[in-house]
Amino acid sequence: MSTSPRELRVGLVGYAFMGAAHSQAWRTVNRVYDLPVQARMALICGRDTGKVADAADRLGWEAYTTDWRDLVARDDIDVVDVCTPGDSHAEIALAALAAGKHVLCEKPLANTVEEARAMAAAAATARSAGVRSMCGFNYRRVPAVTMMRDLVAAGRLGVVRHVRATYLQDWIVDPQFPLVWRLQKDRAGSGALGDIGAHIIDLTQFVTGQRITGVSAVTETFVKERPLPTEAQGLTGTVDGSAPATGPVTVDDAAVFVARLDGGALATYEASRFATGRKNALRVEINGSLGTVAFDLERLNELEFYDATLPAVEQGFSRILVTEGDHPYMSAWWPPGHLIGYEHSFTHQARDFVEAVATGADPAPSFADALQVQLVLDAVTRSAELGSSWTEVEPALATVAA
Amino acid sequence: MSTSPRELRVGLVGYAFMGAAHSQAWRTVNRVYDLPVQARMALICGRDTGKVADAADRLGWEAYTTDWRDLVARDDIDVVDVCTPGDSHAEIALAALAAGKHVLCEKPLANTVEEARAMAAAAATARSAGVRSMCGFNYRRVPAVTMMRDLVAAGRLGVVRHVRATYLQDWIVDPQFPLVWRLQKDRAGSGALGDIGAHIIDLTQFVTGQRITGVSAVTETFVKERPLPTEAQGLTGTVDGSAPATGPVTVDDAAVFVARLDGGALATYEASRFATGRKNALRVEINGSLGTVAFDLERLNELEFYDATLPAVEQGFSRILVTEGDHPYMSAWWPPGHLIGYEHSFTHQARDFVEAVATGADPAPSFADALQVQLVLDAVTRSAELGSSWTEVEPALATVAA
Amino acid sequence: MSTSPRELRVGLVGYAFMGAAHSQAWRTVNRVYDLPVQARMALICGRDTGKVADAADRLGWEAYTTDWRDLVARDDIDVVDVCTPGDSHAEIALAALAAGKHVLCEKPLANTVEEARAMAAAAATARSAGVRSMCGFNYRRVPAVTMMRDLVAAGRLGVVRHVRATYLQDWIVDPQFPLVWRLQKDRAGSGALGDIGAHIIDLTQFVTGQRITGVSAVTETFVKERPLPTEAQGLTGTVDGSAPATGPVTVDDAAVFVARLDGGALATYEASRFATGRKNALRVEINGSLGTVAFDLERLNELEFYDATLPAVEQGFSRILVTEGDHPYMSAWWPPGHLIGYEHSFTHQARDFVEAVATGADPAPSFADALQVQLVLDAVTRSAELGSSWTEVEPALATVAA
Amino acid sequence: MSTSPRELRVGLVGYAFMGAAHSQAWRTVNRVYDLPVQARMALICGRDTGKVADAADRLGWEAYTTDWRDLVARDDIDVVDVCTPGDSHAEIALAALAAGKHVLCEKPLANTVEEARAMAAAAATARSAGVRSMCGFNYRRVPAVTMMRDLVAAGRLGVVRHVRATYLQDWIVDPQFPLVWRLQKDRAGSGALGDIGAHIIDLTQFVTGQRITGVSAVTETFVKERPLPTEAQGLTGTVDGSAPATGPVTVDDAAVFVARLDGGALATYEASRFATGRKNALRVEINGSLGTVAFDLERLNELEFYDATLPAVEQGFSRILVTEGDHPYMSAWWPPGHLIGYEHSFTHQARDFVEAVATGADPAPSFADALQVQLVLDAVTRSAELGSSWTEVEPALATVAA
Repeated sequence: MSTSPRELRVGLVGYAFMGAAHSQAWRTVNRVYDLPVQARMALICGRDTGKVADAADRLGWEAYTTDWRDLVARDDIDVVDVCTPGDSHAEIALAALAAGKHVLCEKPLANTVEEARAMAAAAATARSAGVRSMCGFNYRRVPAVTMMRDLVAAGRLGVVRHVRATYLQDWIVDPQFPLVWRLQKDRAGSGALGDIGAHIIDLTQFVTGQRITGVSAVTETFVKERPLPTEAQGLTGTVDGSAPATGPVTVDDAAVFVARLDGGALATYEASRFATGRKNALRVEINGSLGTVAFDLERLNELEFYDATLPAVEQGFSRILVTEGDHPYMSAWWPPGHLIGYEHSFTHQARDFVEAVATGADPAPSFADALQVQLVLDAVTRSAELGSSWTEVEPALATVAA
Repeated sequence: MSTSPRELRVGLVGYAFMGAAHSQAWRTVNRVYDLPVQARMALICGRDTGKVADAADRLGWEAYTTDWRDLVARDDIDVVDVCTPGDSHAEIALAALAAGKHVLCEKPLANTVEEARAMAAAAATARSAGVRSMCGFNYRRVPAVTMMRDLVAAGRLGVVRHVRATYLQDWIVDPQFPLVWRLQKDRAGSGALGDIGAHIIDLTQFVTGQRITGVSAVTETFVKERPLPTEAQGLTGTVDGSAPATGPVTVDDAAVFVARLDGGALATYEASRFATGRKNALRVEINGSLGTVAFDLERLNELEFYDATLPAVEQGFSRILVTEGDHPYMSAWWPPGHLIGYEHSFTHQARDFVEAVATGADPAPSFADALQVQLVLDAVTRSAELGSSWTEVEPALATVAA
Repeated sequence: MSTSPRELRVGLVGYAFMGAAHSQAWRTVNRVYDLPVQARMALICGRDTGKVADAADRLGWEAYTTDWRDLVARDDIDVVDVCTPGDSHAEIALAALAAGKHVLCEKPLANTVEEARAMAAAAATARSAGVRSMCGFNYRRVPAVTMMRDLVAAGRLGVVRHVRATYLQDWIVDPQFPLVWRLQKDRAGSGALGDIGAHIIDLTQFVTGQRITGVSAVTETFVKERPLPTEAQGLTGTVDGSAPATGPVTVDDAAVFVARLDGGALATYEASRFATGRKNALRVEINGSLGTVAFDLERLNELEFYDATLPAVEQGFSRILVTEGDHPYMSAWWPPGHLIGYEHSFTHQARDFVEAVATGADPAPSFADALQVQLVLDAVTRSAELGSSWTEVEPALATVAA
Repeated sequence: MSTSPRELRVGLVGYAFMGAAHSQAWRTVNRVYDLPVQARMALICGRDTGKVADAADRLGWEAYTTDWRDLVARDDIDVVDVCTPGDSHAEIALAALAAGKHVLCEKPLANTVEEARAMAAAAATARSAGVRSMCGFNYRRVPAVTMMRDLVAAGRLGVVRHVRATYLQDWIVDPQFPLVWRLQKDRAGSGALGDIGAHIIDLTQFVTGQRITGVSAVTETFVKERPLPTEAQGLTGTVDGSAPATGPVTVDDAAVFVARLDGGALATYEASRFATGRKNALRVEINGSLGTVAFDLERLNELEFYDATLPAVEQGFSRILVTEGDHPYMSAWWPPGHLIGYEHSFTHQARDFVEAVATGADPAPSFADALQVQLVLDAVTRSAELGSSWTEVEPALATVAA
């Protein structure tokens, strides 16, 4: 392994939304945390020369390349950070692991269970050679989410009875919104389900420490045909005035499912891009026998906690402003009451990844964890196809062991 | 029919929680609304002589009886108001309709589809003789709920895409809470499903103007054995110190289901008595192509409305304080900003019922409407028993016609 | 004294907004509370025969009269409830006390300090003859407000440092809103200051147990001339189409002042009828060395409590739903989570008044308490006239003793 | 002037809380905005060699110095960014302006009116030589605040009637919190008044476009003696176990004042460090004849807007999530619904400052604007000393002209 004793040279693949968010994290992480090694923004990769050159300049990367194979092959890269659409995750990550690079891969891990299985297996193999891998479920590192996990782990909720999770957006409510890559199954794997549903699956399992064992699901595509984009336009594609050609939407617009967790809790999940007015409404509520926590990503600095062990007349939902120095990750930032934003979760993720690599620890969520999320997505898809009938989630551990 | 031209003589069966709420409504309705006929609190019925005498005195009824058959048979009663547990609804209501009394029956209409079918048929027959009947889904008459319905009906939401409804309580989280009648299937029919789930089924169908066509459901009984109450104790039963005998809980503690509505919307429902910290959290959100409405019964004077036709940078969830004189039902009450409470929904219900009787109009929800809710409950129960597989709701109209 | 052993015969003077609210309270109080004596709605008084006859019928009073002197003189009246505009409070209340009637008088106690002084003195004299008197600062009896007082009294806030109180409305923002009696100094005494400012003065003193010792104030009349109403129109006067004559607004539209309390706290007060969008926004926040409470009348079932003695990372503003049976006044109402409204504060007030009369206790707030509020209002007015210079509040006790 | 055509070389004086916030802004501004020139983090200055060397390394500055005179004198510095305590602002800024450097100076501009006057005069002189200066009232650049200003400027609020502003913190509620520099008049100038009160004075004047003309004020020091810190400890000083020596608190703990604005509005202001539970609660509400806006820095991504020109029954406080690409400053950041934090206001400030320097425009707030805030602070102090009597704010323009 080529890790320099003083720094970790990062190669980033992709420079769109996720690439920008990861760049902001790599740029900041050394500046606010006291890390054992320094992250260095060594190389960025994209297919279009002009665009990747611009991105390197704008985002602050030392160099660029148009070939991810080149990036993976270079001796002076220690970490490969995969921020491409899901259809290329497996190929890039497998090559990087094979080349002995530590890998941080955006979620969902892959577009199919098969790819995810291969990646988890490769990660397990690479791990024995000291190579680290991690999937980018960044919301685990929102301080209020980490604090929810800590409260559950400390027994403050008692026995968990209910999980209620929604991730609601509204960016494609307009039927004239174009057919961007996120609406194409071959590029994105699935629609709302894999893009945002995956987040609430991972987050709720992380917070409760329980795994989903089975689901009953319905998915829906409300708008089945959309104008073709004039070119690849990312998240907020627009089209010119001419009457556009159209194409079929091949992913779900919304997915809803009921689930059971292995600790006995009953759970509901909803992911939709048709929830008018909800921009990025990842909301989670967890009811236990001793208390409840509730979280809303649109108010990400706040955690609501109901402590049912207080005197009955004083019980209430307490709005905790998760900005104290003693709250998770917050020692690095500002005085109490000074908010952080969306991007900070990526900085926290970068910190934990760098520390794990530097100290030889296993970062989480692992590729095996991410495979398990993929297996839940797969169970959801199968249940929806089978008239919502109850569908068990295939165990991940056995898969990896195989 | 014996309706006096100037007043409507009401006979109430039951004096517990619902009896008290209806009494407050009958006591108030003439005082705040200008009605074509006056409601008169003529007679109250309960099985225990001492208790019903006390209730008559305390709640302000002119007379009492211990036999509902006596109440139904009397010439000087125009309206029978049924506030008993669900297992006696059918018998009382059928007798009252047969005796030519107008009937207001608490929800759920009955404990079984069969009973509900018989009641809807009897109501249809009685209607042709000028006898009115109505089921007490009082939340339709919360002004903010009525306003939601009006907004949807006026097209302000466009095409409805999503319905999201929960009704969460926490009064039986403690495993030592006793086995009151609401936890016994033979008395209550079902648990959270029929008690509070029925409310959100009716409310969302009322607001959207759409009917549920099919469901996929899971139900759960978290605490399967509870101490026997020392006597019937109503909603908030308590037990003495001695080690109590226990009995099986025969109803659901929680029910969750996914549904499709006949207008194309996708819906999720959750009813639970195990949602710690949620006391009476009936929450509904409806997303349409042009806007969204959201409501929380714990803030019943407020309606959130998102109007997606406003300029994009000014769009937001508007918290409308539904206390203006021009808001539904509010002309009777206080100046803007002065709140009303839970009980007012019953006064509004009484007003609408009295007006319908006086003018010969059909009050809503009818017994047929309530039967349809019962059929949804039945589909939920069947789906839960069949591994959550998709289950169609049996049509109500055909049933009534039969 | 003529109190019957079993009932208290109430005579109400006034049938507008306050008269209706008090009627609802008298109608309800026996029905929900177990009282030692029953309140009886014996007689209502108003100047216009037709209107008072209608009001008696609609509101449920047994009889009516057009002469308050007749009401005061009758042997079969035990309680005189004064709900007229402020300019007649003193005359009616003094006569009633002289006649040995228990008096409940709406706030503000009077239009001038001189009147209030006379009333407090008369109440003190009458008290020695067993006659009770009370001023109708009903918001003390909102359960969340009573609970705030209890928390402060129990030391849960520690040393009170700050009081922050606003009472904001917007019903006269439109310059075309007519010159109703509440905008005329000779009828109303003052504007926002006495009408709604008086409420927050009383409420904050009640909750903190501290008295205001001095103030620095500014008052303002934004719209100085308004159309004359075509007739007396109450709170929401409207005018016909003809170009109306206008008259001068002789009261304040808004009053803001800084105050010190005798326990060392610093306080700010604002009362305004020009706060667009704020319908009935009585908001209070009290910061102490150990905690904070915050209340908003537009969410009157909720209390926010910040307990600074909890572990730092778990501190937050807890939204307590003040609907538990153990919360003040709530045992009479509905199960937890079922809201009460504005009118319930009057029912609670009626309960406490009836109990005080029945048991020979002193109801609060006394006329002396209300005089002290009047003295604060007077200090505010004087400070505003003297360039906001610091103005001491004249002691109430010495005044009464004199 | 030495501005390079392609970059602007920044020299930062100070590396504590504000130094870190400005560093984050300089590090980020080129990466997210497309600027005409690039900001370069050239030099940082602090008195302690070891600490400033560490800060340079950690925060990412190319070089460091321990002498601000050296920094000001260097040819290769274009911008001097002053982040020291208030007692050195004037000396450093005057020297920098004299040396032809563009100056960004933290608020409050100075500790005294005299210093602020000299600075504003120097800035006016330097301006004629093309040298730019700006005071760091960063909250103007919170997108929701800028949007409030835009709404007022567009006439959406009509005539402004009320301004209500509080800035509440609680970090010195504990009497054992040590006597840090912010509690010493010779270092900090004033307490809550200048530190946080200055922010709400500037912000409300910025948003309304009106200036405060006079005030009536009260200030208070609740805890008059505190333990001496063992060394300078910044905002969150702590002390060791030994019984500490104490010293007098020479600044205000809280300041409250009523004001009038030159457009006719009535305003209240409160700044306190004793508001338990309020961590960084800058809250502003502005009521106009046509609408209201409300803002809370603890929810800085949200703006509440009440539009009184909508149909009455649909009016409500709309919670606008100010995260759309078309909202002020937001094009640079993430998709709608993805929050930004406290630090982003500094990045926005850096962008505007860089653009102003690059294009030869005048950045705002100018030193003259900041002097006017200082004059308001001075009027508050004088009013508080003179028994709260009404005190006019001295005009700033005349002062600068002199």
